[in-house]
Amino acid sequence: MFQAVTKTLSVASTTYVCRGILLGIRHYCKKTPTKLRVSQALSGADLGANVKVQGWVRSVRPQKANVFLHVNDGSSLQPLQVVAGAELNDPLLTFGSAVEVTGSLKKSPHKKQPVELEADQITVIGECNPVDFPFKIKERHGLEYIRQFPHLRCRTNAFSSLLRIRSEATTAVHSYFRENDFVQIHTPIITSNDCEGAGELFQVEPSGPEIVEDEYFFSVPAFLTVSGQLHLEVISGAFSRVYTFGPTFRAENSQSRRHLAEFYMVEAEISFTESIEDLTKVMEDMFKSATEHVLAHCVEDVDLFHKHVTPGHRVSMLKCFILSTLRITYTEAVDILNRSSEKFTFPTDWGCDLKTEHEKYLVKHCGNAPVFVTDYPYDLKPFYARDNQDHPERTAAAVDLLVPGVGELCGGSLREERLDLLSARLEEYLDLRRFGSVPHGGFGLGFERYLQCILGVDNIKDVIPFPRFSHSCLL
Amino acid sequence: MFQAVTKTLSVASTTYVCRGILLGIRHYCKKTPTKLRVSQALSGADLGANVKVQGWVRSVRPQKANVFLHVNDGSSLQPLQVVAGAELNDPLLTFGSAVEVTGSLKKSPHKKQPVELEADQITVIGECNPVDFPFKIKERHGLEYIRQFPHLRCRTNAFSSLLRIRSEATTAVHSYFRENDFVQIHTPIITSNDCEGAGELFQVEPSGPEIVEDEYFFSVPAFLTVSGQLHLEVISGAFSRVYTFGPTFRAENSQSRRHLAEFYMVEAEISFTESIEDLTKVMEDMFKSATEHVLAHCVEDVDLFHKHVTPGHRVSMLKCFILSTLRITYTEAVDILNRSSEKFTFPTDWGCDLKTEHEKYLVKHCGNAPVFVTDYPYDLKPFYARDNQDHPERTAAAVDLLVPGVGELCGGSLREERLDLLSARLEEYLDLRRFGSVPHGGFGLGFERYLQCILGVDNIKDVIPFPRFSHSCLL
Repeated sequence: MFQAVTKTLSVASTTYVCRGILLGIRHYCKKTPTKLRVSQALSGADLGANVKVQGWVRSVRPQKANVFLHVNDGSSLQPLQVVAGAELNDPLLTFGSAVEVTGSLKKSPHKKQPVELEADQITVIGECNPVDFPFKIKERHGLEYIRQFPHLRCRTNAFSSLLRIRSEATTAVHSYFRENDFVQIHTPIITSNDCEGAGELFQVEPSGPEIVEDEYFFSVPAFLTVSGQLHLEVISGAFSRVYTFGPTFRAENSQSRRHLAEFYMVEAEISFTESIEDLTKVMEDMFKSATEHVLAHCVEDVDLFHKHVTPGHRVSMLKCFILSTLRITYTEAVDILNRSSEKFTFPTDWGCDLKTEHEKYLVKHCGNAPVFVTDYPYDLKPFYARDNQDHPERTAAAVDLLVPGVGELCGGSLREERLDLLSARLEEYLDLRRFGSVPHGGFGLGFERYLQCILGVDNIKDVIPFPRFSHSCLL
Repeated sequence: MFQAVTKTLSVASTTYVCRGILLGIRHYCKKTPTKLRVSQALSGADLGANVKVQGWVRSVRPQKANVFLHVNDGSSLQPLQVVAGAELNDPLLTFGSAVEVTGSLKKSPHKKQPVELEADQITVIGECNPVDFPFKIKERHGLEYIRQFPHLRCRTNAFSSLLRIRSEATTAVHSYFRENDFVQIHTPIITSNDCEGAGELFQVEPSGPEIVEDEYFFSVPAFLTVSGQLHLEVISGAFSRVYTFGPTFRAENSQSRRHLAEFYMVEAEISFTESIEDLTKVMEDMFKSATEHVLAHCVEDVDLFHKHVTPGHRVSMLKCFILSTLRITYTEAVDILNRSSEKFTFPTDWGCDLKTEHEKYLVKHCGNAPVFVTDYPYDLKPFYARDNQDHPERTAAAVDLLVPGVGELCGGSLREERLDLLSARLEEYLDLRRFGSVPHGGFGLGFERYLQCILGVDNIKDVIPFPRFSHSCLL
């Protein structure tokens, strides 16, 4: 029973009542319809069943004898078509309103959908004034337009597809690592390190009084992480395969379409590496495996993008994951750039960093396919990158994966494990700054407490890799 | 080939050389041993094979004719026993050192391990001075002791088991939600909202110059999230089942064993709820399903805890997930507390919040089993909790799951979806503050860029639920 103030539109004759005699007592029992999500209803498994479907109206088409609705609940791109007698129509049945429909699932006479719901009853659960609603029926709004409505853009086809794809891609990444024996590590968000030695950091202090030195919450200045690498390296001292997948931060004052202050990173560390191939293999496999998973599980959603949002992209994307990834060295890359007739804004001398324009040219040169660039000049890479000791050039065992449209997708390196070489290089760095509405409900679960609960561990600090608490932000 | 400066201890006779004639040319080919992780070697699938195993030495037992090693690489609690001729022993083979062992896998004559590695060659890859190493061979160090070494505690059995369990439990949570059609949402870490209206917030600003009002990086004061609920609620306006699983923050100045400044939360929102059972069912199912998964996939690791770290906990834990969870109302809970002979520090009058002492008593009263407490006084719950409109008591449709040892594990509520009721209550809140080493390598992948890459989306802001960038921290 809905506790909400709702308007119920009912056809009396459709209430299914059955009489039963049990232990000599006469019972009246009303058959409860099975609650289904739209994706379940569309699967066709419940044809003929008395069901209840709830969702948001994506279209209303009143006709003489009938009214047709499309109802979507986020479980699939495809909405469920509802067919009701004209007497069930109501001015409150508008685009964007939330409804509950009971009725029976029938095979649809139309090719477009396999199943439709013949409604007995339609209840408007949440009204929606179509004049105030920023999205209009039958209109395909641009991504820029919908971005203005962060609280509503999930109501559009494009963004709801994006959310389902993002969720599935997250699953795909975790599945790849799990199937390949990697252990997932929740590397900390708040850290007193600065992995990259570069980049703008966000500082973190309790809100309220101004930050006074010597009175830091964590006893030391604390920042939002720019990379989980150093923490993964710690764990990779006992686990030969670890990864992390979580948000990272840059306080870069940029309005560009390539930058975010908060973004998610997948990072992996593999111990006992013998050459850069130990990395490129995992990078390539992960990339292909995740993509294959997404393409297999999000057919309609990916199609929406490839057909309507980013037409023509499918071929280029398929190339990325079908082709075997090429591999060139930085020195070869510089040669390619210098032999080209293209005019670049930035220099292409050996020793200069590859800029986006160079990366894009290299990808194009390689047939618009992904390419690994390896062995960058030692001086371009952070202190922890492994010295190839290949005088006179001197390169580091670092690699970037360049892909069409994006440029650098992945970056990695073998880490300098030789204590003497690392100490020497750290010396050079000592002077640089350092640091690294409808009725709805929900619940929250404290994951550490859950672990304490199943393990019996008394101290919460023992069930998290790097505990942070006041006056303590070690590592 | 290892590029590291290593010491190779080799028995010449064991190098397997085969001669082949191919296209009239004589080839010498050295059979390359198969690289295996310890867990793979222990599975017994490669008995008789020529293999290479790399890991850290957990024990060294030199005998007259042989030396026995235990090698662990984090892939399992169980180490691989290595048997080598005494001539392969070396002073550098110490507890904690990193080694590479090649040889053949044999059935072990001992019951303790199914398989052992008969070594042809042992290479010490990373030395470890046992005097400086804080953990001692054959000693079981307490959790408190190992906590002092955040960069090394993953080398202990207990903490490495914890890390594997945490990783598997993370998988279990994601699996549960995926199997039940929930879409995962990466709710933002940086937010200008304060969901709970309470709790100490961390403020976030770029490091460097002091924070000056009107010059905020995000144009408004920005904080680390205390809950993803409000953002999930936004998405639950289009998706009837969503969840998030990520870090949340509290700037609470506490050294207690129950508090962390950074911790992970699993949060879910379900739309079209009809009663509190819609929540309790998911809470209970998730809890049991995740636990079942962990128990099935981490047998040895969980056993280590239940036998050596937290002895006696197994029975209490099994109760939690075998028994059907009891359900009492807050009013019944207060009655139970008031009828008890226990002396409580905090009052137990109707309207007073349940403290940890009360929660623990209730769990004990219920047979040391989990219990749901529902329908708390309206005034104890945040503004968004749904009014039960049950005068004269007036309660809210809120629920806590209490479990043995921990107390509150989960908390949830139906949300107030009725605009008029919510506005009235928000009025009351207007005056409150608001807001919301060994050679090793690795790589990083930008997840948003990955999505851009497979979808062809030009603007990174379109592939993340709630983009944050300078001067913009909407919602």
